[in-house]
Amino acid sequence: MTPSEFQRARSPEAKRLREAAILDAARALGAEHGIRQVTLTDIAARTGMHKSALLRYFETREEIFLRLTAAGWQEWAPALSARLREIEEPGPATVARAFAATLAERGMFCDLLAQAPLNLERNVSVDAVREFKLATLAAREDIFTALDEQLPLLDRAGALDVIATAVALAGAFWQIATPGPEIAELYRSDPRLAHAVLEVEPRLTRILTATISGMTAAPAAQHLRPH
Amino acid sequence: MTPSEFQRARSPEAKRLREAAILDAARALGAEHGIRQVTLTDIAARTGMHKSALLRYFETREEIFLRLTAAGWQEWAPALSARLREIEEPGPATVARAFAATLAERGMFCDLLAQAPLNLERNVSVDAVREFKLATLAAREDIFTALDEQLPLLDRAGALDVIATAVALAGAFWQIATPGPEIAELYRSDPRLAHAVLEVEPRLTRILTATISGMTAAPAAQHLRPH
Repeated sequence: MTPSEFQRARSPEAKRLREAAILDAARALGAEHGIRQVTLTDIAARTGMHKSALLRYFETREEIFLRLTAAGWQEWAPALSARLREIEEPGPATVARAFAATLAERGMFCDLLAQAPLNLERNVSVDAVREFKLATLAAREDIFTALDEQLPLLDRAGALDVIATAVALAGAFWQIATPGPEIAELYRSDPRLAHAVLEVEPRLTRILTATISGMTAAPAAQHLRPH
Repeated sequence: MTPSEFQRARSPEAKRLREAAILDAARALGAEHGIRQVTLTDIAARTGMHKSALLRYFETREEIFLRLTAAGWQEWAPALSARLREIEEPGPATVARAFAATLAERGMFCDLLAQAPLNLERNVSVDAVREFKLATLAAREDIFTALDEQLPLLDRAGALDVIATAVALAGAFWQIATPGPEIAELYRSDPRLAHAVLEVEPRLTRILTATISGMTAAPAAQHLRPH
């Protein structure tokens, strides 16, 4: 074994700990500055590693943030499911509010949800994408079960559409709601642009309430669905 | 006037033509390769200009693509409005289908809709963002009028939410539906990932039908809305 092979051949536990430290550093930097500002060099500096050493654990900055997106699903899904199970009068509005509240209080996760298909999945290995997709698929199962308990009128295809709508809108609205400081000042100063100021949680609640209402409406509304 | 000032001081018409040529080149390249692949150098090469000359017309590649996003709104809004006015039996499903069909047939516009708040608005001047926002605001007016004619039960706040939902979902779903070639092969080869293959138009039609149904439902459903 050469010295450099020895250095790489850490125990699985040591490797796991190092990966966790890198992910923690990326999470902290992302929360401070927003994902788009954080480079591999920043993450290496925060963990006290050389960039070349960091590259033994993750191939690209996108792989690091894709792992954080998967971790975000694994943390959000049980939190949402628990919130759904606490609802005393389940209906479109209360279920919509559970989605909107749990997403709006996770700003960095909303940022990652929008970045993943645009920027993160494009610069990683096929294996990294497979692992990411399987992790988010598994995380959805808990939400399906909680939705089925609370809204039995919503079938699985409808539940899949509700989850897809909630995460796509949370990602897009979060980006619109958090412009850079100069643009935020522009929105405040020009009354013609007041419409551009967007509050994520109330808008998401309003839209998801309507969407879930439409999906669970009495059969009278069903003929309006596309064939 | 120095020679270099003379070179820049083209007639307004010549300047407009040069800008149009740059935008056309960027549009063609974006349609061929996807927005994310196109650099300023590519655009300069396609127009037969030096990159330094191109920078007299646009500050950044993001400014060019933000202009194309505004142009996309100006082309899509009247097309959608005309399609809405042709509907013989207006209802949630037919209106949803008009949104989904006109967006799904404009792939590059969907790409731009997702890129704008994430990547394009972040690397341009405040003036460029103001101009972009005012252009998309004006383009919405035509859609408001057509929606009001066809679905009088949908108020202006509801119409604003429907448009925001349609463009946010079209942008996000288009990104998910057009992965790189390696990831597309992964989705085809691994049956556990079959759910990741997404068809933009049917899913958008289904979700918008439910959303518009919920927003225009009889007052019985109104108590479900958040207070």
